[in-house]
Amino acid sequence: MAEPVRIGVLGRGTVGGAFCELIAARAGDVAAVAGRTPELAGVLRRSEGDFDEILAGSEIVVELIGGTDPARDYVLRALRSGTHVVSANKQLIAQHGDELFAAAREAGVQLRFEAAVAGVVPVIRVIQESLAATEITKVFGIVNGTTNFILSEMANTGASYSDTLARAQELGYAEADPTDDVNGADAAAKMAILARLAFHSPVGLADVDFEGITEIQPEDIAYAKELGLSLKLLGVAERVGEGISVRVFPCFLYSGHPLAPVEGPFNAVMVEAPTITEITMSGPGAGGQETATAVLGDVVSIVAGRAPVHETRSRLKIVRDLSSSFYLHLEVADRPGVLAQVAEVLGRNEVSVRSVVQRGHGDDARLVMVMHEGAEARFQAALEEIARLDFLRSAPRAIRVIEEEFN
Amino acid sequence: MAEPVRIGVLGRGTVGGAFCELIAARAGDVAAVAGRTPELAGVLRRSEGDFDEILAGSEIVVELIGGTDPARDYVLRALRSGTHVVSANKQLIAQHGDELFAAAREAGVQLRFEAAVAGVVPVIRVIQESLAATEITKVFGIVNGTTNFILSEMANTGASYSDTLARAQELGYAEADPTDDVNGADAAAKMAILARLAFHSPVGLADVDFEGITEIQPEDIAYAKELGLSLKLLGVAERVGEGISVRVFPCFLYSGHPLAPVEGPFNAVMVEAPTITEITMSGPGAGGQETATAVLGDVVSIVAGRAPVHETRSRLKIVRDLSSSFYLHLEVADRPGVLAQVAEVLGRNEVSVRSVVQRGHGDDARLVMVMHEGAEARFQAALEEIARLDFLRSAPRAIRVIEEEFN
Repeated sequence: MAEPVRIGVLGRGTVGGAFCELIAARAGDVAAVAGRTPELAGVLRRSEGDFDEILAGSEIVVELIGGTDPARDYVLRALRSGTHVVSANKQLIAQHGDELFAAAREAGVQLRFEAAVAGVVPVIRVIQESLAATEITKVFGIVNGTTNFILSEMANTGASYSDTLARAQELGYAEADPTDDVNGADAAAKMAILARLAFHSPVGLADVDFEGITEIQPEDIAYAKELGLSLKLLGVAERVGEGISVRVFPCFLYSGHPLAPVEGPFNAVMVEAPTITEITMSGPGAGGQETATAVLGDVVSIVAGRAPVHETRSRLKIVRDLSSSFYLHLEVADRPGVLAQVAEVLGRNEVSVRSVVQRGHGDDARLVMVMHEGAEARFQAALEEIARLDFLRSAPRAIRVIEEEFN
Repeated sequence: MAEPVRIGVLGRGTVGGAFCELIAARAGDVAAVAGRTPELAGVLRRSEGDFDEILAGSEIVVELIGGTDPARDYVLRALRSGTHVVSANKQLIAQHGDELFAAAREAGVQLRFEAAVAGVVPVIRVIQESLAATEITKVFGIVNGTTNFILSEMANTGASYSDTLARAQELGYAEADPTDDVNGADAAAKMAILARLAFHSPVGLADVDFEGITEIQPEDIAYAKELGLSLKLLGVAERVGEGISVRVFPCFLYSGHPLAPVEGPFNAVMVEAPTITEITMSGPGAGGQETATAVLGDVVSIVAGRAPVHETRSRLKIVRDLSSSFYLHLEVADRPGVLAQVAEVLGRNEVSVRSVVQRGHGDDARLVMVMHEGAEARFQAALEEIARLDFLRSAPRAIRVIEEEFN
């Protein structure tokens, strides 16, 4: 049995709490993938615990304090003592990246920070690993969930910026002091990190021009909607000639754009390079569990050291009796009672109808229906009966429908 | 200077050719990230080269032959001899995964295969690394570009399946023999791989129920469009009770679904787990350069061994004179000549107008315009002049517009 791997956690807020729970719940999976069982070496709270003691007992330090002081000092001391560090702290990486990366390289330890940008959306790993040797030309996207929630709500309700902000605060999507989110500064820090990693060039906060959403009027969103446009707060980092540009600004997107459907507190990042066309990644940009999951992914990678080789851990039963929603297309004779007979068969088989369209006349009469979700076996039984009805002009066509609507 | 890392390439088709070019072009970047410069140890062509000789000279073997024979034999021999393997071969991994993973674990070497599913979309890495210790409940998406192209085209043109297939073949999006793509077998192999990795359970091709798109009628797509639905060939692997279900079937999606906007030859995969809500990843599912880029990412990870610590490699200039398209909202007095004066200022500053909406009367008159892309400095100069026009009832509002339309 390999030694357990001891993890010191700095900070015990929402993310810290979720991470401690996750480590306990998933310890077996970490051991299966990485070969060692994680153990908490200690948790540093504002009022409790001693950093030096926790550091001395840890192989990995997880920094979830936020801000730069004392986070910078703690992380530097951890790295210099030969301890791997995982951080979720965008300000720390954006403002002190050079110093921290140098310390990690010098000590030969890892510094991982997936959770610092776009939460559990794996944009840092993809840029630093999948695309490590790829010439990235542009990284852009929605990296602040608070402002995306506010803009989505304004578009859906027509409410003003200030009313929508108040609602976002009520729902927990905006902080009591939302300044850094709504003025673009939070997104700017994240774009500085992404630009630095994508272009291998030092990018500081002062290099990022940013604008926020505080001046947006509901009527701008409404007018633009008529032009087929939706409003997002975008971060854009791109190569321009021999230089780069890194900016954050509110921006309209045409409906065909991959980022146009990203609504609510979600984040989404696109990466472009000549050899990849583009990759888009999206998901929740915040949330205690989501951020903690990103941190756990970094911890596992540090412990595993190299790519885990897949290993079967269970032998799960293949299930075939499933529930689905179906679309049903029937070419029918144009005569009374057709709908009633079809409905009777469906009803008897406990298949519930969501919507019906009856179309055409004479030789072109059709019945098109969408069902509510139900047992596939029951729908198949109904379908076999329907196929035998004498007014059908051709075989019925059934296609599954995914009912979930997102966002 | 570290030893170069010698790479043997099996197969010299489109992907093999692109990979050899990429290795040459990006050798410096690989060295910067991973510490060693890649060198080709040899390329095995059907009619040329000796496998044993290439294997003997390689630290990493890249298998791009496709099919299972002789790929399986070559990959097994490479792994057993202690050589890392990168493969882009979905059939090989889907059919012989158990044997290959066991051989890799036994020899203590890596077996990577990002390119086998969804091309450069980093779904394998995210499932195996970012989410290694996360309890994934569902993996689903569009994993066959040929069928997604055909279904998108049928929806856009109303043409029949067979006409659209012929067009896809002309454009190079479908093979001369498209059977495995259009009947769902290709997607089934990819879903077997994803299910295996997500659920840590042995999933073989026989466990995957699949249907294709050959029976789809244009009128089904047209009727469903009226109901707000679009058609995709979906692969779905999910936990059901204590078991799992892995299936491929054509399926309608409501327009709010994250996969609904994925059109043309693109692939997209969603991963769900209680602690992440969902992550969506999309991008080109095929293409020589794209697939070669995915292979290169795997090669770099093997050479790097552990996560690279970021290092600045250049000091790029921050560029601020950029081109953009703008939306301009003016509250104006309701009198003749207003549009002419605004247009004159824009024209004189070489700002070109894409669309104009004039709305309201009296105290609510507005001019809303979207510009074509142009130098921001020129637009800003025009904006300053416009702000001084005496018929404005409030300050002009300008917001950037992203013009690119995708797919």
